[in-house]
Amino acid sequence: MTTVTTRTVTYPADGLTMVGHLALPAGDGRRPAVLLGPEGPGLNDFQRSRADALAERGYVVLAFDINGGRWLGDPQEMLAWATPLLADPDRMRAIGHAALDVLRAEPRTDPDRIAAIGYGTGGAIALELGRDGVDLRAIGTVNALTTGRPGEAARIRCPVWAGVGSEDPIMPDAQRDAFIAELRDAGVDWRLVVYGGAQHAFHHPPVDHATRPGVGHHPLQAERAWRDVLGLLAECLPLPEAE
Amino acid sequence: MTTVTTRTVTYPADGLTMVGHLALPAGDGRRPAVLLGPEGPGLNDFQRSRADALAERGYVVLAFDINGGRWLGDPQEMLAWATPLLADPDRMRAIGHAALDVLRAEPRTDPDRIAAIGYGTGGAIALELGRDGVDLRAIGTVNALTTGRPGEAARIRCPVWAGVGSEDPIMPDAQRDAFIAELRDAGVDWRLVVYGGAQHAFHHPPVDHATRPGVGHHPLQAERAWRDVLGLLAECLPLPEAE
Repeated sequence: MTTVTTRTVTYPADGLTMVGHLALPAGDGRRPAVLLGPEGPGLNDFQRSRADALAERGYVVLAFDINGGRWLGDPQEMLAWATPLLADPDRMRAIGHAALDVLRAEPRTDPDRIAAIGYGTGGAIALELGRDGVDLRAIGTVNALTTGRPGEAARIRCPVWAGVGSEDPIMPDAQRDAFIAELRDAGVDWRLVVYGGAQHAFHHPPVDHATRPGVGHHPLQAERAWRDVLGLLAECLPLPEAE
Repeated sequence: MTTVTTRTVTYPADGLTMVGHLALPAGDGRRPAVLLGPEGPGLNDFQRSRADALAERGYVVLAFDINGGRWLGDPQEMLAWATPLLADPDRMRAIGHAALDVLRAEPRTDPDRIAAIGYGTGGAIALELGRDGVDLRAIGTVNALTTGRPGEAARIRCPVWAGVGSEDPIMPDAQRDAFIAELRDAGVDWRLVVYGGAQHAFHHPPVDHATRPGVGHHPLQAERAWRDVLGLLAECLPLPEAE
């Protein structure tokens, strides 16, 4: 039987009070840990449920906040907030480091075994932690083929796994090519999965922002992307034997 | 405990006597089955070991022959043989159907649950079976982003999973784009995995033909590609509970 314990954690970052969701697996010992980054609109119950699902498998997980506990359901409001953030690696890193500090401070976390997984904006933040030289065991992103400042990808020292929907207008072929070129030139160990027919945010059940063109849920590919994330964690963040 | 039984099977196809390798899982009942296609040089012990590994998991597997029991270790000889074959869908289909008939005739095979997995030339044959309308549960190919005759991809009725090395000069970006366009236009359920840093034949331990430029083994990405193939089978060809 597995019992997950969850806790709301608040911490300062980016001039805001962030409201994260910490999920702890059953047992008492230290465990590999996952920093889980949400999509652009913010942290909601669906993303918190992802953290709980990972905790059920045995990971300590912090689903981190990116915008001070808000849910930016209006696309214009979300883009007005996310666009400058995505153009500012230092702000993204500050948000990521604040979350990482919270995760590392949790006694159940094994601080030497942390992976960063993120979706959309949360994925861009995960990548920036890698480009900042943070010691991560894996970086996994979905719909976040974001490039960084020249030369900094060489500081990524862990495998990078990236998934993207083939019909994602926000991640067109040119963006994929630029992302691949950056990782290739930096000598990073990388993989890219293209999910056929999937649009932007294919990995998230329908919400209000799903009415934008090019945005939509694809349950089958979403399930596969989730299995791929689990596979990345199984490879790079193996769990100790169950207690 | 699992015990795999193997048998050499000979059958006619393409004007040759093919020498396949049939691997049967432990037990007596019918099982989901896999048609396993080899790389261009032909069927060797490594590829037979893939069949055995799948049989250990519970599948009936035929590692099929494509060239009459030969091993075309010389690249020029291999290309002289494979190039016209790859340009001839009817010949590829004949080779595939002959193998499929052998697999279906095996009493342990559940004829309603067959997947086709192939590497390079063997993958091109797997795709042609799909384009011929064969009732398959899944098609998986590695380094075989081959396109077919116009319109025929619409006959593919199962998920297609394709993996390719990012540094495979035989499968350049234009070939990937054409492959994706064919599947997209046909409404096929597809995924593509690009393995960073992997060359052509990255999935095969070094052999003599590995001295060609752009050809080389990548053990880490090879292991991931194998896990991805197992994941495709787990999704599309679930095994009954162990007896």
